[in-house]
Amino acid sequence: MISVITELHQSLVDQLVSTCGEQHVLASAHDRTTYGSDETEDLHFMPAVVVRPGTVQEISSILQLANREKIPVTPRGAGTGLSGGALPVCGGIVLSTERLNRIIEIDERNLQATVEPGVINQVFRDAVEAKGLFYPPDPASRGSCFLGGNLAENAGGPKAVKYGTTKDYVLNCEVVLPTGEIIWTGANTLKNSTGYNLTQLIVGSEGTLGIITKIVFRLIPLPTQNLLMLVPFFSPEKACEAVSAVFRAGFTPSAMEFMERDAIDFVLRFVDVKIPVKDEHQAHLLIEVDGHDLDALFKDCEKISEVMYAHECDEVMFADTAQQKADLWRMRRGVGEAVKSHSVYKEEDTVVPRAELPVLLKGVKEIGKKYGFKSVCYGHAGDGNLHVNIIKEGMSDEDWNKKVPTGIREIFELCVKLKGTISGEHGIGYVQKSYMDIPFDPTALELQKGIKRLFDPNGILNPGKMFV
Amino acid sequence: MISVITELHQSLVDQLVSTCGEQHVLASAHDRTTYGSDETEDLHFMPAVVVRPGTVQEISSILQLANREKIPVTPRGAGTGLSGGALPVCGGIVLSTERLNRIIEIDERNLQATVEPGVINQVFRDAVEAKGLFYPPDPASRGSCFLGGNLAENAGGPKAVKYGTTKDYVLNCEVVLPTGEIIWTGANTLKNSTGYNLTQLIVGSEGTLGIITKIVFRLIPLPTQNLLMLVPFFSPEKACEAVSAVFRAGFTPSAMEFMERDAIDFVLRFVDVKIPVKDEHQAHLLIEVDGHDLDALFKDCEKISEVMYAHECDEVMFADTAQQKADLWRMRRGVGEAVKSHSVYKEEDTVVPRAELPVLLKGVKEIGKKYGFKSVCYGHAGDGNLHVNIIKEGMSDEDWNKKVPTGIREIFELCVKLKGTISGEHGIGYVQKSYMDIPFDPTALELQKGIKRLFDPNGILNPGKMFV
Repeated sequence: MISVITELHQSLVDQLVSTCGEQHVLASAHDRTTYGSDETEDLHFMPAVVVRPGTVQEISSILQLANREKIPVTPRGAGTGLSGGALPVCGGIVLSTERLNRIIEIDERNLQATVEPGVINQVFRDAVEAKGLFYPPDPASRGSCFLGGNLAENAGGPKAVKYGTTKDYVLNCEVVLPTGEIIWTGANTLKNSTGYNLTQLIVGSEGTLGIITKIVFRLIPLPTQNLLMLVPFFSPEKACEAVSAVFRAGFTPSAMEFMERDAIDFVLRFVDVKIPVKDEHQAHLLIEVDGHDLDALFKDCEKISEVMYAHECDEVMFADTAQQKADLWRMRRGVGEAVKSHSVYKEEDTVVPRAELPVLLKGVKEIGKKYGFKSVCYGHAGDGNLHVNIIKEGMSDEDWNKKVPTGIREIFELCVKLKGTISGEHGIGYVQKSYMDIPFDPTALELQKGIKRLFDPNGILNPGKMFV
Repeated sequence: MISVITELHQSLVDQLVSTCGEQHVLASAHDRTTYGSDETEDLHFMPAVVVRPGTVQEISSILQLANREKIPVTPRGAGTGLSGGALPVCGGIVLSTERLNRIIEIDERNLQATVEPGVINQVFRDAVEAKGLFYPPDPASRGSCFLGGNLAENAGGPKAVKYGTTKDYVLNCEVVLPTGEIIWTGANTLKNSTGYNLTQLIVGSEGTLGIITKIVFRLIPLPTQNLLMLVPFFSPEKACEAVSAVFRAGFTPSAMEFMERDAIDFVLRFVDVKIPVKDEHQAHLLIEVDGHDLDALFKDCEKISEVMYAHECDEVMFADTAQQKADLWRMRRGVGEAVKSHSVYKEEDTVVPRAELPVLLKGVKEIGKKYGFKSVCYGHAGDGNLHVNIIKEGMSDEDWNKKVPTGIREIFELCVKLKGTISGEHGIGYVQKSYMDIPFDPTALELQKGIKRLFDPNGILNPGKMFV
């Protein structure tokens, strides 16, 4: 167990300065405060110092020093995470990757790209789109989040339902281990049966096994056409049932998003979008199809609409213009922030096999009723990935701190009972670690802790995360 | 290091009998011989005993016994592997999964299936196809290979170019660890950011970390239409160049196979298929597109043909009937066996980024010339996965044993120089383990050995594989 370090001896700070340069070692209270939060709830922890290395060699030197001196190191991307992965819960060093922000190569011959971890998701998608290529993973924070953080948390987003999550686009990465050694995890190939899959061990490891310093992505040809439909339902359960019916009917939309009524109400107060919501509408599905052939997409939409009507939806609406499409997406992407701006909240990232969504949704509401909390549910229904935002509103601090965690535990137990798990795309980080006994039995958990010890014998890297 | 065990004390055999039943503990020389080979070259090793457990609990008991007594255990599927993964190189126990052959559930609501490891790939694909669903991974041995073995080696096949390899369809698995403990690696969900990716650590681990006893696959809707074209080229390099041009043009065929002239000549002597090969044809591409809309597929084929003609192919031929399609696939799938029946050979499973294929092919031929060996090249060009069959023919045993391994090392070094690696879909197993220093530096290799020790402290499970 590593100790919390609130202050660093000046000789150690001097070594960091000699590694990164004075302007990249931040020790003021203001800077340390800024780097002490991410987007997770209202949590804050104070690091002893913040470093912004500019090269992989500098990162290696910092980790060698930290490993020798047993100083906690918390790697940080853009700080947009929702599970507290970037919170310096043990103080020590926050290591920001913001200066490693180059797109090193877009290889059009091989449909691949090599990037540094500090590249913003949207900057990267725009750069490859300009070459007719597509990088699908698109978390809600894509305008600001870093690709390195996307890897660390195995980020998803609406496109995952057709195209998969971050892990499905990573071919290879360069990683600095907690001991300062630098490795490549794999090869730049689409197929690989050579040794253990270190690449996929690093993806989703939340900065606990190493610091990702280069990423090789595979890319795909950019779909040139898409259609977007918004479908209102009178019952949230019927909306959820319609989701799996679409896939059973042989269609794979490029997005299949669910918003219950409260989510719509919250977000419409927050973003300036007009949609005709009737009082009786209790949920909406936002469905996108994409491809190259517009005629074929229209045919798909017709058949998908039939499935919707068979599940008793109200009138299906199509986005006719690029502006309408952008508005609908702005609405969907704004839900999280809208809820956050409304009240203190906790966001759970539940995931189940998609046909179990109606059961999960019903269960979440019942558990909420039992423990006296309100939840706003929305998310990537096509993947069975339901974000459950539990809002504090008028709840007492005592109930919030005691009853809600018990309720969350019941929600997670329900997920696992339904063959699902406790995080689909946000990660475990700091806020979900005490629930890891639910999806994993002690042996599977012990194996993971063993892997952590193997990579990080002194436990310096992102301590206090993922495991209790 | 575990010792080779050629004979098992009777008391241990008795314990195995009491676990599995007498008819499932095979000790005759004939049986042990049968289970001492797989499809890898002409290699054979004699196990002390063969067991055929019928339940996960029996497997757990066997591993507890083996772990306590330090007896090597070699897990075995159908024995169709090409890297020697199922060879009992340290004797001891061969543990066959042939009796664990149930398709437990095909879940049409969630497009998932749960199976035991001894189910034959083709049996499974037929069963899901009957429900309008598709399991894409289709190794050449799909008529006999087991799904458990497919997971262990992360098997590919022609469809991988569009649909990915085995790893892309595994959501979760039940695994018996070398200590006899039973775990589930993940959840039955499309998205998962919960803990380290134990599932992908097990997939491709070649039976060295645990014995897979249940697999949860995701399935996709079955494409209802496909078109198949055969394209002759006057130059193998031009054929390889055409491959990456197709993807750059925005198309993702469902198969993109390469056969050089010698491969065609070998296989046409071996299987009864008529194709009009001219003397000047030096290579062929076999290209399949699939989907739901036949008109759209015809359009795609037209554009793909344009790309082919731009790379100086001879006349593009289309398979007009189901029989012609079957014949062409029989031809392609028959190459490996045709070469094998011709001569002693070694099969290398090289893989590079696809645009580097022409460089790899040229390099293989030059290295062959330098060391005096002939090679027959074919494979999954769309993935950059080139099978290099090195044939002995008239080569002396001394040259075969000394010069060829040096040549193979040079071929693998070329792969890695081109950002590729040494196995795309066959695994490392026994025959490639001495080359693992080429794709991995010592630190990355040492990490993998550490993972092995963590899972298998006594080194009982599939010893002598993957690492030297």
